[in-house]
Formats: sequence, C-alpha cells, structure tokens
Amino acid sequence: MSHWKSYLEEHRETFLHDLVQFLSIPSVSTSPEHGEDVRRAAQWTADRIRRAGISDVRIMETKGHPVVYAERIESPDKPTVLIYGHFDVQPAEPLELWMHPPFHPHIEDGKIYARAASDMKGNVLLSIVACEALLQTRGMLPVNIKFLIEGEEEIGSPSLGGFIQQNRQLLACDLTISADGGIGTREQPQIGLSNRGLAGLQVRVKTADVDLHSGAGGYAPNALHGLISILESLRDEEGRIQVDGFYEDVKSISDAERDVIAKMTPAFDAVMRQAGVKTSFGEPEYTPVERSVARPTLEINGMWGGFQGQGVKTVIPHEAFAKITCRLAANQDPEKIRELVKAHIYRVAPDYVDVFVEDLPGSAYPYQLPAEHTSVVTLQRILEQTTGKHVKFERSGGTVPVMGMLRQTLGVETITVGASQKDERAHAPNEFLRLENFYWLQEVVCMYLEELPGVLRQ
Amino acid sequence: MSHWKSYLEEHRETFLHDLVQFLSIPSVSTSPEHGEDVRRAAQWTADRIRRAGISDVRIMETKGHPVVYAERIESPDKPTVLIYGHFDVQPAEPLELWMHPPFHPHIEDGKIYARAASDMKGNVLLSIVACEALLQTRGMLPVNIKFLIEGEEEIGSPSLGGFIQQNRQLLACDLTISADGGIGTREQPQIGLSNRGLAGLQVRVKTADVDLHSGAGGYAPNALHGLISILESLRDEEGRIQVDGFYEDVKSISDAERDVIAKMTPAFDAVMRQAGVKTSFGEPEYTPVERSVARPTLEINGMWGGFQGQGVKTVIPHEAFAKITCRLAANQDPEKIRELVKAHIYRVAPDYVDVFVEDLPGSAYPYQLPAEHTSVVTLQRILEQTTGKHVKFERSGGTVPVMGMLRQTLGVETITVGASQKDERAHAPNEFLRLENFYWLQEVVCMYLEELPGVLRQ
Repeated sequence: MSHWKSYLEEHRETFLHDLVQFLSIPSVSTSPEHGEDVRRAAQWTADRIRRAGISDVRIMETKGHPVVYAERIESPDKPTVLIYGHFDVQPAEPLELWMHPPFHPHIEDGKIYARAASDMKGNVLLSIVACEALLQTRGMLPVNIKFLIEGEEEIGSPSLGGFIQQNRQLLACDLTISADGGIGTREQPQIGLSNRGLAGLQVRVKTADVDLHSGAGGYAPNALHGLISILESLRDEEGRIQVDGFYEDVKSISDAERDVIAKMTPAFDAVMRQAGVKTSFGEPEYTPVERSVARPTLEINGMWGGFQGQGVKTVIPHEAFAKITCRLAANQDPEKIRELVKAHIYRVAPDYVDVFVEDLPGSAYPYQLPAEHTSVVTLQRILEQTTGKHVKFERSGGTVPVMGMLRQTLGVETITVGASQKDERAHAPNEFLRLENFYWLQEVVCMYLEELPGVLRQ
Repeated sequence: MSHWKSYLEEHRETFLHDLVQFLSIPSVSTSPEHGEDVRRAAQWTADRIRRAGISDVRIMETKGHPVVYAERIESPDKPTVLIYGHFDVQPAEPLELWMHPPFHPHIEDGKIYARAASDMKGNVLLSIVACEALLQTRGMLPVNIKFLIEGEEEIGSPSLGGFIQQNRQLLACDLTISADGGIGTREQPQIGLSNRGLAGLQVRVKTADVDLHSGAGGYAPNALHGLISILESLRDEEGRIQVDGFYEDVKSISDAERDVIAKMTPAFDAVMRQAGVKTSFGEPEYTPVERSVARPTLEINGMWGGFQGQGVKTVIPHEAFAKITCRLAANQDPEKIRELVKAHIYRVAPDYVDVFVEDLPGSAYPYQLPAEHTSVVTLQRILEQTTGKHVKFERSGGTVPVMGMLRQTLGVETITVGASQKDERAHAPNEFLRLENFYWLQEVVCMYLEELPGVLRQ
C-alpha cells in the first residue's frame, strides 16, 4: 500500500474532475426554483462520501433543505472528529459580471473559477478525499469520522440548530473541524481563533394612530423624536454601550490576546480605505482591531419613520422603527443581551410613546478557541513544521453561528481547516479557488487527522 | 334703486346657479391633465367678475397656472381693498368615497356637496357677488377694489411670491381680505388673528462611500448614530429647542393674548382624541394651545437610513437622512431660523461624519394681526351688532403663506373673511359648504366694505 501523499498526488486529475462536477450543480439554497439542484448537490455529496469508502451515509430531512450525515466509527477507543461543511451556494447574480458562466467551471493560471469554488465546495470535497486517501492507503481512519454537511448555510442555517439539538447523540464527538474557511497559505499559514455572536431587535415607537399635521406641533408628540431619544441613550459619544449589565460577561483582553491581536493583519485599514470611511469610531481604551474582534458592539442597522419622498410634507410621524444588532464578544449570551437591551429601551422610553420591541432572527453565540487548546497547538505545530513559517492567529469581527451552536449543544470545540482565502470573491462574481491550496489542504487534513488521536482524549 | 340686501336676496337663485357652474369645473392644479380645466376656472372667474360690473379684468400669466387680476378704482381718495382667493382645487381622489360625483354639485339639507365647495370657490363667488350687489344698487363701490385670485394655492402657491413681487404697484392697497377661510357662524362668530410661518431643511449625514458589514463594528462609524446624535441635540427632553438664538425674535405672550388663547375653542383636545394621541408634549411653561399657536416648533417630519426590509441585514449604514421643519411664531424670520439651525447642526456634528444641509421648499413668514387693529375691531363690531353674539378670536398653528408674503412685499395687513368651516371636509371626500353661510357672508362682505372707508386711512 502506498502512502496517502502518493495517493493524493496520483488522483489529482480525478479530484479536479470531481470538483468540476460538484461546482456545476447550481445549488442556490435561497431560490425555490433551485430546490431540486440543492437536493442534487446533497445526493452528489452523499455519493462522493460513499465512494471515499465510508458506507454509512444518510440524507436526512429537515424543514428546509436536507442534511448529509455520514460516519465511520473505527473503534470506541478512538476520538471522534466531526467535519462540518455545506453544499449550498450563494446566488450567482449579477450574471453579466462573470467572465465565464458561474456553473461552468473555468480553470486558468492555477485557479478554478465558479460559484462556490472558494465558499465552499472545494473545502467539502478536499475533506472527503483526505479521508479517502487515509482509508485507501491505511485500510482504516486514524479517528472516528462523522460528516455534517448542510444545505442552508447561505440562508443562515435556519434548520441546523434544531437538527443538531434533535441529533445530539448521533453527532457526539471530541472535536469539530469546520471546513468553512481557510488557514492562509504555505507562505503565511494562519489559524482563526474567534468570531463574534449576534443578537438583534426591532424597535417600534408609536405616539398616535395616524400622522398629524405639523400645525399641531406644540402638543402632538413626534414618534421620531421619541425613538431618537431612546436610541441616543444606548451609547455614549465615544461608543461605549450604556445598557446596564451589557459588558458584564465580556472577558477582559489578556496581554497574550493583545499580543495576538496586535500581530493580526490589520484588515481594518484596507476595509476603511476601500469603503471611503472618514474616521474610525469606538471605545478609545481599545485599538480599532481589538474593538472589532474582542469587544461587543451595538449598531443601528436601519431606521425609518415619517415622510421620505421628495420635497416637504409637514407631518408629525405617529410611528418610527429601528433595527438594532449587537455583535457579541466571547462569553456573552445573545438571549441575555437581548433582554438587557429591551429592559433599557422600556426604561428610557419617554412618557409620550408606546414602545414595542421584537426579536430579530439570526441570533448566535460568540465563539473563541483558546490559542493553547490542543487542537490549535497541534495544527500550529504541523503547519510550522511543514511550511517553515510562523503561524499567525486571526480573530474575526463577524459571526459563524455553527461554532457557538456546536459548543452550546454538543459541548465541543471547533477549529477551522479549509483552503479558502479572503480575496477569492466569495459571494461575488468571478469567485475562484487557488488549486495549490485545494491540494495542500488535502495533505494538511490527512496530517491533522493522523495527529489527533495522540492529543485528543488524553 | 334697491338696497344691496334686497339685491342679494332677489338673486339667490342666480348665485346658486353660478356656484354650481363654478364647482363643475375640475380645476385640479396638481394634475397636468387638468391644466385646461384650471384655465377654464380662471376664465370663468374673470367673466364672473366682469359680469359683476368690474370691467378691468386681466388673466395674467405666471410660470405655472394664470392669476386673475381685476380692479375698480373709484377714487384716489378712497382706501383700496385687495381680495385674495384661489380658483384651483384639491384632487378628488379617492372617488369611490364620494356619495355624489365631486364635480356634479349636489344640494341637500342646506348644504352644497362638491370638491372646492368649502375650499374655496364658494368664498371666491360670494366676494364677487357682494361687490356686484354694492355696485348694482349704489352705482359705485365704497372702496377701491382689487381682486387677486390665483390658481396654485393647492400646490403651495409656487408662482405667487414672484408675481406679487413683480406687480407691487399694481397690487398696492390698504388692506387685504383673504377669502380663504371662515368667520364661524351666526351663532358663534370668530375672527382669525394669526398663523405660523414655516422653514424646512433636509439633513444628510455620510460616514463612508458604501455600507459596511457590521462585522466591522468597533471601528466603522455609523451614519445613523451620527445623525441621531445631531437630531437629539436639537431639543431638550421637554421639547425646548436648543438651537442658539432660536427664540430670540419670538414675541412673549401678553396677558391679553393669553386670555384670547384660553378662550379659543380647544381644537387640540378633539385632534388628540381623533388621532389616538397618548400624551401631549411640549414646553411645560405654556399650555398646549399656547404652544401650538404662539410658540415655534422644530419637528422631524421624516428620517431614514440603512436597511428597512423584513428581517435582519447586518449593515453599518454609510448615509442617513432627515427632514426637519419649524413652525414659526409671530416675528420670526424663516431665513434666519434656517441659518441658525444649520449652524447648530454643523457645530454639533460628530467628527466621524460629513454633514450636508439643504433648504426645503415652502418657506413662509408667520403672520399675526393685532386684535386691536382697526380691520379687526371693525369686523368684530359688525359681527357683534348683527348677530348679538360675542366674537371669539382664533389663532392657528398652521401656515397661510400668502399673509406673510403680502405683508413682507406690500406692507399690508390681511384679515380673513369667508364662509368656510372646519368640519366641511376640505381636501377630503364629500366636501360641502353650508348655504346659509354662503348667503350670510355676502352680507358681511357688503357691510364690511361699507364700513372700511370710515376706519382705514384715518
């Protein structure tokens, strides 16, 4: 039997062919007219896992698109690793901006161009073929493997929380590998350590049943003024959130974390420049990068009320609305934060308004994996030994709901191991994946799975 | 020769017939498809004035709909009275709510139902036939009469200011009678003493060229928070306007005025009840009615920014907008107020925003006629003598731009003398006019014009 490394090298052409096939399925989860394509992608994924030598593969129904679950339990003594991914994709529109059709993959200069090349069919496939290489060359896997590949990630995973809850025993494991992301390049390997949670509310303020003529100004209360006064009270002028208890559970940033954050690629400079931002804003006690990855936020995402047309209409608006979301730092609970913000709003609302607050969907726990966690240390060691470079740690200001969900429900940590890079136009026209990373990550996954039995469950 | 009173009584049927004709013209000034109808109404008005015995009648062009001007100068020694009105009407939509077609007048129970019956073709006609009665029975008018009847009142009189400016000499007079309004009923006669001015601004706040993902929250500035902080600074929590110099020119309310206001029909109770207002709002030093007629306001009429759709979109908005109008109390200058509010906005705007302020159309001077002005005292005497009732004084929280315009340009005071009442559904379906007031006001105008030579120019 050959080594998995030779197996991967010998089958490159097949795997690339597989990738082209997988990318040709327009499994756009948000479009009802692509419902059958999403199911075809589920079927393709299930078949491909089976072809890898893992025979227990199930297409499991949810209220929405199905989930592909698969497992190969080598021995109860071995640790179990759950690999998470998704086979659904973002819409390809606007089509006219694509150089090549989004579902007819095009290969050029070591890159494969197609919708979902980077996010994330390449990563699903490379995880499967890494297992295949181990299985076909060793006859067994170094760990028990479970696959959880969903079809609703691009629409916010509405069925996944319930699915995990209902299948806790089936999904039980010692570590989750999320294939949805990247570990940088051979030149600059990276490990992601955290992302933030999310909690959202919609506020409606009402002062009357109908708009009044502004000739009634002087006695008629104005819903917009009422809402503005509520919203202005939520933060001080430097951005500190004024809601009682809001920061209570936020972990203070350790010196080690400060160090990690200070060494992160300062994405914020580029983001600000590209967006034409005038001046950055936020708690002056922290650096902008610290604020964006290790501190929570409260932002008004939208607001409206009264007359918005051309010219003038002298009304006193009787209703006004705002949407608020908070990004949550490690250790915060979205439900608790929602209740605190609600309590604040009800407390400060002026007498002359009725105020109604409802939850917005998309609630998510924050997630932070300690840099000293064995899963991190092991991956770091592999990457540094094989690339000869220092690993950089990254933390994200965004949200990956599945990680907090898995920890809350299964009590398990998640590490991201994938081939995607930030410049590969995920969600945009002309999305691509660098093939060198597609191949490199197959090896990384093999090495990582081989190392894990020695470090997990000790 | 008979007395004008007999003349009016003898011609009631003719005048009612005239009114039906006039009301049958759908002279909707806002609708391009009714352009010819507006011109027909101008022509009808001009013809009717000529038929009254006033031969110098002109249809004068403006950038928009024409103005009907007419004059009869009896003698340079007599005072000159300008009668203001308009022959254009509000749209009749929604048509399905009318019991009878809006441009086919229907008479029932002493009321005539049609669009513009109350606002204000009845008043235009009764002013003309009052002059006719005086002229036909006396052979001359007691004063020099000028008519200024416009066709754009229902769209905010966009051409009138320029027209008056350009025709200052033609329009020169000692008093203006606005026929656009009412003097109550024989049971409760009223005289209107004031209305408020108007000044409007639109504010745009910008923090970047594009919306940012809220994962950038912590450094990306939020245009909505910036705008909210500006707007919240404009008033204190009890509604006092915090703009430096805003109240500088506002006349303090004299004890006599307080008395008049306290005796006014408290329209605000009914308005609040009908609109389902929870609690009234405003400067606690004044009563709600005082605030609404003798104090200025600053109200946000509309505001918008960011995501306003269903559900959640985690953006940090890069732009936000608000429309602001101020109702101005007697003696305030709309241009000065605009400059003060602008200066405040620029001064308090946070560092992280660019702010742009532009003027909104519809600027108007406030107007107040002193209760002791000879035009008021004379009308009051006539009304009290002929009805045996005490006249109530009224002041309005709304705006009638023409009054401030006439005082600014011609230096002349304006008193309202018309048959309209507030419950006659002006601007709404099933508008009507009480015919008893249509006839009564013809007499009141005759009496008033007969009395004026003795009191004006003394």
